[in-house]
Amino acid sequence: MRVLGVDPGSHATGFGVVERIGGVLHHRQHGVIRPARGRPLPERLARLQQELDRVIAEAAPDVAVVERVFLAANPRSALVLGQARGVILSSLGRAGVQVAEVAARQAKQAITGSGAADKDQVQRMVARLLALDAPPPTDAADALALALTQAHAGVLTELPTRSRGRGHRQAFTRALSERTR
Amino acid sequence: MRVLGVDPGSHATGFGVVERIGGVLHHRQHGVIRPARGRPLPERLARLQQELDRVIAEAAPDVAVVERVFLAANPRSALVLGQARGVILSSLGRAGVQVAEVAARQAKQAITGSGAADKDQVQRMVARLLALDAPPPTDAADALALALTQAHAGVLTELPTRSRGRGHRQAFTRALSERTR
Repeated sequence: MRVLGVDPGSHATGFGVVERIGGVLHHRQHGVIRPARGRPLPERLARLQQELDRVIAEAAPDVAVVERVFLAANPRSALVLGQARGVILSSLGRAGVQVAEVAARQAKQAITGSGAADKDQVQRMVARLLALDAPPPTDAADALALALTQAHAGVLTELPTRSRGRGHRQAFTRALSERTR
Repeated sequence: MRVLGVDPGSHATGFGVVERIGGVLHHRQHGVIRPARGRPLPERLARLQQELDRVIAEAAPDVAVVERVFLAANPRSALVLGQARGVILSSLGRAGVQVAEVAARQAKQAITGSGAADKDQVQRMVARLLALDAPPPTDAADALALALTQAHAGVLTELPTRSRGRGHRQAFTRALSERTR
């Protein structure tokens, strides 16, 4: 099962692909799509969609995970985020890829054991779980975290949704690690 | 010059095409894209984009006008509107169509003489200006109003931005009517 995680943003959209073969997770690719900021909005959105179409065609994911948005800071930023999110969802819909939504907090909880983990912790943990040489850029790390969380959905449903401190984190990290080896 | 007006909405997106030949405006087409509400969001957005791509290909507009959003009611509705808006802008960007933004209030002002005109007034006025047999559906009427406003941009810049009551409206309606005949 190949899972594509996407973290939409107004300026940068991260993506990451992991593949689960048996109980083992493999890193396939990750990246950040960053359309030139000086160009008109329609051109930037078209560029984002074009790049994502290429990723979808290459990765041929069985399922995609897009970050769930609970409450954007304000209507203006929600509109801007929505525009990026719209083209991403449309591309996935057109490609016939099933889309799941996972909250950032839920992914952080699953990967680091804390829903309040900072960017740095997520980057390090994603790198460790996927045996990467270096931590991926933050947007790509967030996307990989979403993909990992979804790939482990079966495991996650058995876990408590709130952090139970160090013991829980270690247990879950172990569970994740076993599957990523 | 062919102008495509688009009024994005979370459930229904109106579009309308007018063509200006010399000083005369002609109605070309209008419609409402309404993806099935029961389907998953990615599929609905893909459907919206697919239908709009067809309109763009058929109409081959020189310029498009999309409703400007000043302040959505709340972050949730702004996100949903942004998603529809994103796929529309991306399609226009990919097709290389120049995009202008016009506020709903500005279009109402231009078409009816009052920025606070209701849906009904806009529908009737659009039908009259474009010599349609019947008023178009509200979403399509709003899109045609955007297109008319843009097609008349040269005229509009010479007009006061605030309504000056009946006299102004009559004068402007006359100006528009002369051009649409």
